[in-house]
Amino acid sequence: MKVVQRTEDVRRNVAEAKAAGKAVGLVPTMGRLHEGHFSLIDAAKAGCGYVVVSIFVNPTQFGPQEDLAAYPRSPEDDKAGCRKRGADLVFMPSVETMCGGGPLTTVAVTGLAETLCGRSRPAHFAGVCTVVAKLLNIVQSDKAYFGAKDYQQSVIVRRMVEDLNFPVQIVVCPTVREADGLAMSSRNEYLTASHRKQAVALSGALGMAEEMIRKSHPPAAEVVRAMVDHVAANAPDGRIDYVQVVDPGDLHDVGTTDGPVLVALAVRFGEARLIDNVLVD
Amino acid sequence: MKVVQRTEDVRRNVAEAKAAGKAVGLVPTMGRLHEGHFSLIDAAKAGCGYVVVSIFVNPTQFGPQEDLAAYPRSPEDDKAGCRKRGADLVFMPSVETMCGGGPLTTVAVTGLAETLCGRSRPAHFAGVCTVVAKLLNIVQSDKAYFGAKDYQQSVIVRRMVEDLNFPVQIVVCPTVREADGLAMSSRNEYLTASHRKQAVALSGALGMAEEMIRKSHPPAAEVVRAMVDHVAANAPDGRIDYVQVVDPGDLHDVGTTDGPVLVALAVRFGEARLIDNVLVD
Repeated sequence: MKVVQRTEDVRRNVAEAKAAGKAVGLVPTMGRLHEGHFSLIDAAKAGCGYVVVSIFVNPTQFGPQEDLAAYPRSPEDDKAGCRKRGADLVFMPSVETMCGGGPLTTVAVTGLAETLCGRSRPAHFAGVCTVVAKLLNIVQSDKAYFGAKDYQQSVIVRRMVEDLNFPVQIVVCPTVREADGLAMSSRNEYLTASHRKQAVALSGALGMAEEMIRKSHPPAAEVVRAMVDHVAANAPDGRIDYVQVVDPGDLHDVGTTDGPVLVALAVRFGEARLIDNVLVD
Repeated sequence: MKVVQRTEDVRRNVAEAKAAGKAVGLVPTMGRLHEGHFSLIDAAKAGCGYVVVSIFVNPTQFGPQEDLAAYPRSPEDDKAGCRKRGADLVFMPSVETMCGGGPLTTVAVTGLAETLCGRSRPAHFAGVCTVVAKLLNIVQSDKAYFGAKDYQQSVIVRRMVEDLNFPVQIVVCPTVREADGLAMSSRNEYLTASHRKQAVALSGALGMAEEMIRKSHPPAAEVVRAMVDHVAANAPDGRIDYVQVVDPGDLHDVGTTDGPVLVALAVRFGEARLIDNVLVD
């Protein structure tokens, strides 16, 4: 496994892999890798002969009041994990490489980025899209792998790729969870012991919502109300950012739950803002 | 020479050319090809073994009050001209192919797109960038060719390519002019006989400005004033949109003309809005 910092080194190594007839898979990450990320590497290994993992804490997707400085970083552990799971190339660019020279270009997806996480993170998805566009152009992979935990991100990235004709296939892999149901996230480390226990209320609320919908297709408002009650009862320190039932395609709020729906929520515990979702179809 | 409408046909033909070891050049146009466009095809032929010309009147780069419907189109002449000049592939996508499904993604370059032509065409360059990004991703050429007549466009496209790491080299070719100095443009066809004669005032004003600057490096305001006077005296029907002396790199207005400057202007004659520029370094 090679570790490189410069875009030209990525391109040279990827070109060699392509020349050898290998399909190339990209797993874009912000590092502090956990089993969720590793499952993406596994999927990329299964689908591609050459796997690139990018590790970059992208400043442009953090808001001014957010946790950019505190975001956990563990480059040595990340490299060891990538090696163990069989990645071929780790791309760890500097902020200068990715955001140097005051970049003026922004890629934005309107109509999908203003709901759910976009409500409290207004510039987040433009930051994500711009950096993902850069990574797609630097790596020129055949496939790129994203986790379903960031469902809105996956919908927006897919849309960007489709709208701008990026020659890449986006693959979305299932959320990986702790034994008690908590979705894995680098931000789970922010949780105190007490908050860690309460945080299971997110997946608990989603499980309850899924059961309600499968059983009786209640109005979306009823599902939301039950989820809010569940979080209040089981996570007294949790501050709900949103609980929404939306169309899985266009992310618009739905009134009924007869068709496929995405149920999603975000809850803050202290400094930690956790998200989770379930697709019910 | 092949003519195709679908993105998959472009990709198949380009992949074959690349597999045969050919460098691929893209000449993006809006059709109604003239010697300016043909000089780009010639440059692409000189630099690449396989030349793709795209012909697409991009609705998103026209403002609501602009000349989208009237913009001259001559697909049969364009194809004949491309064949004659040795293009290998002409890509003539439908509006549905390029803008279908209500695309939500926009690529915008801030800080360069608000001056010069961007003043009276606020959404123009985002429309250009978004469609150029699509074309770059569809064709995946090694080089792409643009004319210096649209100097601001070339600066913005270069910046987009650099900021988003598109794996393509942007080549900017000199403006091609009529015998009397008028920069070639599909929009020159809008001119009445009288306006056609007056329109030489644009290149006349630029020639005068270049001479002034080379001779004595006067303040930029003095250059602008002389150019405005020149247009008023020589093109009584011309309505000046802008006359500016700017930094060729960041397009900001400059006060002095000691260093390299771009002198640019836009003048309207009836429905026709003509632009021209000269780089003085």
